Amino acid sequence: MNEQKIIKPRKLSGFMELQPKDQLVFDNMLDQIKSVYLKHNFLPLDTPVLELSEILLAKSGGEIDKEVYRFTKGDTDICMRYDLTVPLARFVAMHNETLHYPFKRFQIGKVYRGERAQKGRFREFVQCDADIIGNGELSLVADGECLKMVDEVFEKLGLDIVNQVSNRNILFGYIEGLGYQKELKQILTILDKINKIGKENAKQELEKLNIKTQDIAKLIEIIEKRGNFDEILPKIENLSTNQTFLKGVSELKEVYSYAKNMGINQNKILLDLSIIRGQDYYTGTVFEAIIPSHKEFGTVCGGGRYDNLASYFSEKNFPGVGLSIGFTRLFDLLMANNMLKANPSTNIDLQIIPLGNTLSECLQLQQYFSQQLQCEVAYENRSFKAKMKDANKQNIPYILIVGEDEIKNQIYALKNMANSTQQNLSKEDCLALLLKNTSKN
Amino acid sequence: MNEQKIIKPRKLSGFMELQPKDQLVFDNMLDQIKSVYLKHNFLPLDTPVLELSEILLAKSGGEIDKEVYRFTKGDTDICMRYDLTVPLARFVAMHNETLHYPFKRFQIGKVYRGERAQKGRFREFVQCDADIIGNGELSLVADGECLKMVDEVFEKLGLDIVNQVSNRNILFGYIEGLGYQKELKQILTILDKINKIGKENAKQELEKLNIKTQDIAKLIEIIEKRGNFDEILPKIENLSTNQTFLKGVSELKEVYSYAKNMGINQNKILLDLSIIRGQDYYTGTVFEAIIPSHKEFGTVCGGGRYDNLASYFSEKNFPGVGLSIGFTRLFDLLMANNMLKANPSTNIDLQIIPLGNTLSECLQLQQYFSQQLQCEVAYENRSFKAKMKDANKQNIPYILIVGEDEIKNQIYALKNMANSTQQNLSKEDCLALLLKNTSKN
Repeated sequence: MNEQKIIKPRKLSGFMELQPKDQLVFDNMLDQIKSVYLKHNFLPLDTPVLELSEILLAKSGGEIDKEVYRFTKGDTDICMRYDLTVPLARFVAMHNETLHYPFKRFQIGKVYRGERAQKGRFREFVQCDADIIGNGELSLVADGECLKMVDEVFEKLGLDIVNQVSNRNILFGYIEGLGYQKELKQILTILDKINKIGKENAKQELEKLNIKTQDIAKLIEIIEKRGNFDEILPKIENLSTNQTFLKGVSELKEVYSYAKNMGINQNKILLDLSIIRGQDYYTGTVFEAIIPSHKEFGTVCGGGRYDNLASYFSEKNFPGVGLSIGFTRLFDLLMANNMLKANPSTNIDLQIIPLGNTLSECLQLQQYFSQQLQCEVAYENRSFKAKMKDANKQNIPYILIVGEDEIKNQIYALKNMANSTQQNLSKEDCLALLLKNTSKN
Repeated sequence: MNEQKIIKPRKLSGFMELQPKDQLVFDNMLDQIKSVYLKHNFLPLDTPVLELSEILLAKSGGEIDKEVYRFTKGDTDICMRYDLTVPLARFVAMHNETLHYPFKRFQIGKVYRGERAQKGRFREFVQCDADIIGNGELSLVADGECLKMVDEVFEKLGLDIVNQVSNRNILFGYIEGLGYQKELKQILTILDKINKIGKENAKQELEKLNIKTQDIAKLIEIIEKRGNFDEILPKIENLSTNQTFLKGVSELKEVYSYAKNMGINQNKILLDLSIIRGQDYYTGTVFEAIIPSHKEFGTVCGGGRYDNLASYFSEKNFPGVGLSIGFTRLFDLLMANNMLKANPSTNIDLQIIPLGNTLSECLQLQQYFSQQLQCEVAYENRSFKAKMKDANKQNIPYILIVGEDEIKNQIYALKNMANSTQQNLSKEDCLALLLKNTSKN
């Protein structure tokens, strides 16, 4: 063993790896998200990280996406999942006969995208998805439920968000109504990036598509519609007579009314017609949540309605609506901005320090206290002084000093580390005092 | 979309994918394991699933193991982790200056082994590991703590286990004492598989190594030592005067005394000198837990002490002791043998069924009940009869029928699905009744 070569330990770049105390906070936040999903009667799904490339790349016709981790094992062409939606589609298509509809599943799991490493981008990240899938049809109440869950999740996490909501049919129909059906996709692409490129550049790009000047003005005007639903809805509903447009307005109204009935926080939801969310996939309701005090974080949760989840895997029709939180990126931003809830430096209530030959008795005492508290024994072979110093550094609130005399008398020295006072107590009195003074109880 | 080719949905073979109701049980059991690890002051670690091949294959000198998923992305030679121990070693070597020792970490995560698919073997499986790492040295109390955790984890899971414990130095020293230092590894390999190949075949194989007949008898005799610690320890301690042997006996005694002081269940721990656990890695305490009523399950949890965790990544010495549960395999066995705790077919306490134009009010009622119960609204566009039938199939305990008259009078029809009785109640009375009758409260 001694002569072996030492390999410099390092991890792959672009992969988050937290220190255990931060991981504890990370995991607790995931538990909170999970608790909201479970409260809304979503059930967990855990699909494999690996899928057949044929399945995962069905959408792209099997074309290699540079971001996807793809390899062969034996004769099998395999990909690591890059989202949780394609696996859900595959699952629903495989098991559609036995599922209960609306099928409400959540999945909290890692996905993989081998994109160029850069700050804030991760090649492995946890997504927290929740989707409601219908069999043939799905009520718009489901869209309301997703908005309500976004509200509850971020309230639980203690983060002030605003969820910006639209319905894609509104813009689709409006553009169609102006007579630009042929240029629809190109126009949407330009409007979708208007915040990035600026209004003037967007206008120029629209001009290149031969959009009339007055129509460009109308397009810019409509995507600037943003505000409370009750205020904005009346202002937009007469902007076009196009059927798709009217359908979008009507759906959005209905979804909003459900959200309102569900008691969604009115300050946390805005109608915003600039919400487009890419080009494909979504077909109705779309939403993106931001943290207004930190707009630079961008979208912290997004989602929407899609007509057909599993069109690549089934001839049946499974409309759905869902939300997704890119949790690793969000956590990274919160950590970098000191926005994580205060993380106690220890969760240990009591540390027992043996003095002399009392280890056995200390372990027995530990069992006694552990029934109601977090208790540990400082069993390592170090000096009493070193152990006290270490307990101090760890912010352990109470120390029980157990020497041979203490064992004989069954009275122990309990030291309050915050104020350095010490009391001599029976174990029962120690426990009573600790239970009284420990924040957990 | 309509003309696109349908790809038959399928998953990779050898990968577990549970139905959501079973996944709920799976997740709940993981939460229970996690709660025991946290109670013992272990902190979570979550290393990436992908590692540099140089790191992950350090032990094998970079040699390809057929089981490992290995591929290149750009110029990077990457592996999927096949256990959680090498990543832990890498982490400790990287961060050893800032860790607090003994460093107690748990990791519950998926690992990957592309072995030949067969019943009960999975290519992706969840491992639940907990390890205690020392800086230079580590007290044998840590070994006792691992035994105690095995005890607690399986008690929490409601599974009756026996943890079979040995110390590898006992056999090492005994064989050395008989004069077979050169044949040590080969002898251990044969003894390790004696239960598989049978005593007679083992004897023949030992004969081929030119082991003397009386020594073969001694070897067979010593590995048959099995029973309560208090009974077996006195019977073995004089079997050899070899120093390694005596060290092993003394360590085992010490670990047992700690385990006893920790209040470990005496029926659930056995001294068993046949426990060898492969050839490398472990250097002291070794243990394997089985379920006596289902010996055919094999080892459901194993672990032990190792001298040096990170010898490939650091010149420093990090002794450790840990336990590992191959959870996916265990869950699969429990499910196949109907040994999972009764899984309620629903966790919904109340379903609200709208009759007529009452959806908005139903959603408001849902918010009221959801503060204390699991409540859902049957909002899909289906007949009342179909909804009732479905609620019955789902074993939903209570239904609230909300028609337009009910809204007007603020009195609702609450139906107990178990006995088909119906009461007309205010929402407050409904809630009170449900809280009284719902098992959760």
